[in-house]
Amino acid sequence: MPIEEKGASADRHSAGQSAASAAHLSYVLGFDGGQTGTTCLLAGSDGAILGRGVGGGLVHLARPDGQQRMRSALCEAVASAWQMAGLPPQRCAAVYLGLTGVENGTPEAAMAEQIAGELIEADIITAANDATSALAGALLGKPGVVVIAGTGAIALGGDETGRQVFSGGWGWLLGDEGSASYLGRRGVLAALRAWDGRDPPTQLLPLLREHFHLDDFYGLKRIIYGSTLEAPLFADLAPLVVKAAQEEDAVAQQIVTEAAYELALVASAVINRLSFGGDSVPVAPLGGVFRAGDLVLRPFRRRLCRLQPRARIVAPILPAACGSVLLALRACGALTETTIARLVSDAWQRGWAHVE
Amino acid sequence: MPIEEKGASADRHSAGQSAASAAHLSYVLGFDGGQTGTTCLLAGSDGAILGRGVGGGLVHLARPDGQQRMRSALCEAVASAWQMAGLPPQRCAAVYLGLTGVENGTPEAAMAEQIAGELIEADIITAANDATSALAGALLGKPGVVVIAGTGAIALGGDETGRQVFSGGWGWLLGDEGSASYLGRRGVLAALRAWDGRDPPTQLLPLLREHFHLDDFYGLKRIIYGSTLEAPLFADLAPLVVKAAQEEDAVAQQIVTEAAYELALVASAVINRLSFGGDSVPVAPLGGVFRAGDLVLRPFRRRLCRLQPRARIVAPILPAACGSVLLALRACGALTETTIARLVSDAWQRGWAHVE
Repeated sequence: MPIEEKGASADRHSAGQSAASAAHLSYVLGFDGGQTGTTCLLAGSDGAILGRGVGGGLVHLARPDGQQRMRSALCEAVASAWQMAGLPPQRCAAVYLGLTGVENGTPEAAMAEQIAGELIEADIITAANDATSALAGALLGKPGVVVIAGTGAIALGGDETGRQVFSGGWGWLLGDEGSASYLGRRGVLAALRAWDGRDPPTQLLPLLREHFHLDDFYGLKRIIYGSTLEAPLFADLAPLVVKAAQEEDAVAQQIVTEAAYELALVASAVINRLSFGGDSVPVAPLGGVFRAGDLVLRPFRRRLCRLQPRARIVAPILPAACGSVLLALRACGALTETTIARLVSDAWQRGWAHVE
Repeated sequence: MPIEEKGASADRHSAGQSAASAAHLSYVLGFDGGQTGTTCLLAGSDGAILGRGVGGGLVHLARPDGQQRMRSALCEAVASAWQMAGLPPQRCAAVYLGLTGVENGTPEAAMAEQIAGELIEADIITAANDATSALAGALLGKPGVVVIAGTGAIALGGDETGRQVFSGGWGWLLGDEGSASYLGRRGVLAALRAWDGRDPPTQLLPLLREHFHLDDFYGLKRIIYGSTLEAPLFADLAPLVVKAAQEEDAVAQQIVTEAAYELALVASAVINRLSFGGDSVPVAPLGGVFRAGDLVLRPFRRRLCRLQPRARIVAPILPAACGSVLLALRACGALTETTIARLVSDAWQRGWAHVE
């Protein structure tokens, strides 16, 4: 299945690579499973990206519907990836799954590997936390730290020795400080605290009232406690908080600033617990919360520089799904400077290099 | 249904009362429905308490099982109250239900009244928030404020004009700052923040590990996210935080102090929004969190005095179930100084005057 190569740099690679690798070309799959959706990338063992598919979002595997949701999401994503590549599903050399709520080496990882094994034929299947894939994608497997602030929030770092540690990422009820769900929940709390006379007035009150079509705020209890409780319930409200902060609402600005400080704190905690040589430690911010731009980035940078003078904020290179491809290539012994270069080039050309 | 009168003061009342009221004696029921259990008191229209029953805990009526849980809890509590009184269930003059999650004048209140009406025959049925009953019981219907810190947390005040306002009490996901669920959740957060390197070490880590029989803290995610999410999940952990604070753990002490400050803040917000004449405003603390004693009371008093110099902390006189009886007596026109005195005296003699 030929893919059209449009860029000069890709042409250069493919010219050198195709003859050598075509005979042994095998496939790898890289997954990025988050709370709002799951992405699957299909690549050749030469690093060429061949197809991309998407599926539903995941919830913790301990939830009654957790396993079924994962099964559906992976199935949908992998089927559409093969389809886009114009290939029939076939045995893969390696599959790497970066999945939210799945910690490396836990029973959840084993369960995710088993679920994937029932859906996909492969020599090697590895499941780990989605942050592991994000780190691999953002820094192309090099030492450093990613701070991911999407629906949830976590920092993960890896040093020269290969050791990885995380901070944050305990889910919306136990932390995820700095995430969209944190922003949204803090926004609701601040509005209610203003409404009942505890805190200063805030634009969040009319914004939430409008968003939920509320006559009174008792209605909010009805909505929240009548819902299936999941992180996106509050994460969906984060844009209201960002909007209020952009419109100079002091209460909302305070919430956003504290979120940024929390994100600097997880990055710093990770750096403290690893050994980085060199003058600087690259820290790549990822996830929808950082799309608020300077509103978040400025206090994040300020606090991080104070906590960790060696930290250097860098733009992430590839998204987590590409990171999973990279880790799958490594798992089957196909990771080289050449395959990495091909992966980067293909991801950019096909428009899949965008890191949220 | 004769009840034994043991105290001299009760004898004094009953001597004067029995002849006058026996001919017209009718019954009232007062309910206190909380997240951990429901109490029903059966009283005569002369204020004598005749029986007491208990039922299950309540969840918000918007929850799929909310209505059924309320039906079971009320049914169980009222049946056992009649039984203890040695009376067959019969028509009542008034029923007052103070129920968690049921705000005065909302659709939830109407729904609770309807559910009660299907179970109990009565001339008047009124449902309102349990804080309304707690206020009536704690101050015997006089102006002032109650601060309730149980599974949830709320302050409710009523002034000389009869106007009532509340602050806090938005449930465990939207606030309830200072409650047992707040203490427990903050304790878990602090432990995880210490574990992943963000915050200082704390005794909460070994305490939680032991409590949940955890090998690693990933297990906590499994427990929390695999559970039916309700306030008691975290409220059950509050004693661990109190214990750690009593053993001088600085992190736990900070959490308890902040909880106490939050409780002072809801009380203050209520006082700000009402008009109290006189030199002082009585504020009665209630609920299990205050059982931690000086650990909570000292910072609560300190902060409240700074925010509201007129506030005077007083011991609550009767519990919320007695407050509901008082409000039921008022609803059927039977509330007098004499019936109040009888209610107080009976509650004390029968050992039901204990306010948590």
